[in-house]
Amino acid sequence: MRDAIALAARALGETSPNPVVGCVVLDADGAPVGEGFHAYAGGPHAEVVALREAGDRARGGTLLVTLEPCDHQGRTGPCSRAILAAGLRRVVYAVGDPSDQAQGGGRRLAEAGLSVESGLLAADAERVNAEWLTHARLRRPHVTWKFAATLDGRSAAADGTSQWITGASAREDVHRLRARVDAIIAGSGTVLADDPRLTVRGFEPHDHLRTHRRPLRVVADARGRTPLDSRVLDDAAPTLVAVADDTDASALESTTAVVRVPRSRRGPGLDLSALLAELTEREIVSVLLEGGPSLAGGFLAAGLVDRVVAYLAPALLGAGTAALGDAGIATLAEAYHLDIDDVTTIGPDLRITATVRDRPAPSRREN
Amino acid sequence: MRDAIALAARALGETSPNPVVGCVVLDADGAPVGEGFHAYAGGPHAEVVALREAGDRARGGTLLVTLEPCDHQGRTGPCSRAILAAGLRRVVYAVGDPSDQAQGGGRRLAEAGLSVESGLLAADAERVNAEWLTHARLRRPHVTWKFAATLDGRSAAADGTSQWITGASAREDVHRLRARVDAIIAGSGTVLADDPRLTVRGFEPHDHLRTHRRPLRVVADARGRTPLDSRVLDDAAPTLVAVADDTDASALESTTAVVRVPRSRRGPGLDLSALLAELTEREIVSVLLEGGPSLAGGFLAAGLVDRVVAYLAPALLGAGTAALGDAGIATLAEAYHLDIDDVTTIGPDLRITATVRDRPAPSRREN
Repeated sequence: MRDAIALAARALGETSPNPVVGCVVLDADGAPVGEGFHAYAGGPHAEVVALREAGDRARGGTLLVTLEPCDHQGRTGPCSRAILAAGLRRVVYAVGDPSDQAQGGGRRLAEAGLSVESGLLAADAERVNAEWLTHARLRRPHVTWKFAATLDGRSAAADGTSQWITGASAREDVHRLRARVDAIIAGSGTVLADDPRLTVRGFEPHDHLRTHRRPLRVVADARGRTPLDSRVLDDAAPTLVAVADDTDASALESTTAVVRVPRSRRGPGLDLSALLAELTEREIVSVLLEGGPSLAGGFLAAGLVDRVVAYLAPALLGAGTAALGDAGIATLAEAYHLDIDDVTTIGPDLRITATVRDRPAPSRREN
Repeated sequence: MRDAIALAARALGETSPNPVVGCVVLDADGAPVGEGFHAYAGGPHAEVVALREAGDRARGGTLLVTLEPCDHQGRTGPCSRAILAAGLRRVVYAVGDPSDQAQGGGRRLAEAGLSVESGLLAADAERVNAEWLTHARLRRPHVTWKFAATLDGRSAAADGTSQWITGASAREDVHRLRARVDAIIAGSGTVLADDPRLTVRGFEPHDHLRTHRRPLRVVADARGRTPLDSRVLDDAAPTLVAVADDTDASALESTTAVVRVPRSRRGPGLDLSALLAELTEREIVSVLLEGGPSLAGGFLAAGLVDRVVAYLAPALLGAGTAALGDAGIATLAEAYHLDIDDVTTIGPDLRITATVRDRPAPSRREN
């Protein structure tokens, strides 16, 4: 299964809106005779690739796969049928398929007399597929919030200077993050302050990343303030500007795609769940949230951040903009808790990758 | 030399006001025949211990030592004389001795006809002796600033709650830091807010730490606000309260040791260089600076922080007290830069240890 998870990881960022899946087939004696992964949406499923390689040697053998085999006719045939046709005796999958249309593969195989097990290395298999599983279970995109800050949590100095807090290697690494998601979200404040391109560039494609990947650029811009000559509106990638449903955005609409979203009931800005719902309709499975502090605070407060990637520069400022703005937290007991998945040195900087824990229900207050 | 450095490290926190020193003696054929380290102030020097173990086998051999052998008669005889008496042919030391009274050992040995080399693994030997070398070179204590914060740089929530941002393991680790220094400094704001004990406790002594070590507790308290019933004034360890020289501290003086220090010319609070000078007079070689943000900002702004130990909790607050207050930085180019020495997971938290780089001279401003 560990091999199957590693196979799945090879297609990270390539399969949207499909999951990443890896598969290993063992013959009746337990020797590996086939392996495969789902390489791109519309391409053959991992099981089919692995069974093809195994051929007749699969008969009486075992198939290990990171995600429950599908049982539906999509762009490719259902894997459950291919598994039955191959004459396997046993199927082991790590994580059950939560999607309506695909699930049921495990049950179908068990009913056909195969030995079916699930849950092997489930945590690791969950992690490699976090984006897609979030999307399938919560029916919204998986959100990674990325920020760069000094060791004391400042993302800009007192005079507003922020380029560059982290080194060239960390900035290059951000392009790798961008290349793996379907959309990149920034607030209009960031667009006005930094005029970022929000495109994927500046690194040699590897990790099987396709160079032509161009994630959708999304500007959260309740008041329609995005200047028409912003870099984010150039032709380098598609762009969607989300404005409040009562905002006059006729000028923007003549230049770029605009979507209207209700205002948040909690404060200024957009209803971020509604914004993500619009992205879900556009088959966006994963989102990279890039600045600023207010928008990040809004996403956190709405419970819409799944992963945090912090680039911490070995520097201290003592003044300036905090990396994270108001997220609705008044006291320490309400803090958002994370589980650190990885800490890596990138050039002189540190990259900390962490998963946001589910929050317990807010404690009842008497006043 | 690597062995000698490891030997030196065994006495970290034990030798103040002396350096840590490790020594290995090789016989004429290059085989190790003696090793030693300076275990406590007043105890035999590393060279003497190693030569004693080597005995006659040292004749014609090599002595490797982390610090230039001393040439003065302190509580023990000069090592240069012991080395000459042992009949060695070659001496290699990593770091020259910057102290007035002890230096010249290398020259003395060379003049006596020995082959003398220096600089081997100097960076590592510098690091293990950072506290003492800072003290010897700058004639002030080495200052380690320790802070605990969330990943977004908050050391307290919006309502002031701060206990406990980090987990039990990180808090235990702080006691290890405390056990290795001669003094612990906190501001009166921290004393008023948290009423800390600032003592060493709560962990099993190991790493050769002596359990009876009781670092001096120092309260930076320009206005003499420390309550007489503060825990920091209890009998668990000696305490020194530093007040401004124009402050009436008669009540405090009846309870604890008080030192008068000029006020800073830059802002509220004490002249921190003058405070450290008072500590130098008391043979304080190393200091742990613990909270709060203003005091830390003042030390940084005065160029008086040598090392930073950051305990980062995997949590986000988005509001509350920043870990570091004003440190005189207006723009990103003026940020304090650090070199990360170590990143370790401590329970659920991260500990980042970093050395503060020398700052370039401030850029000239036209207005």
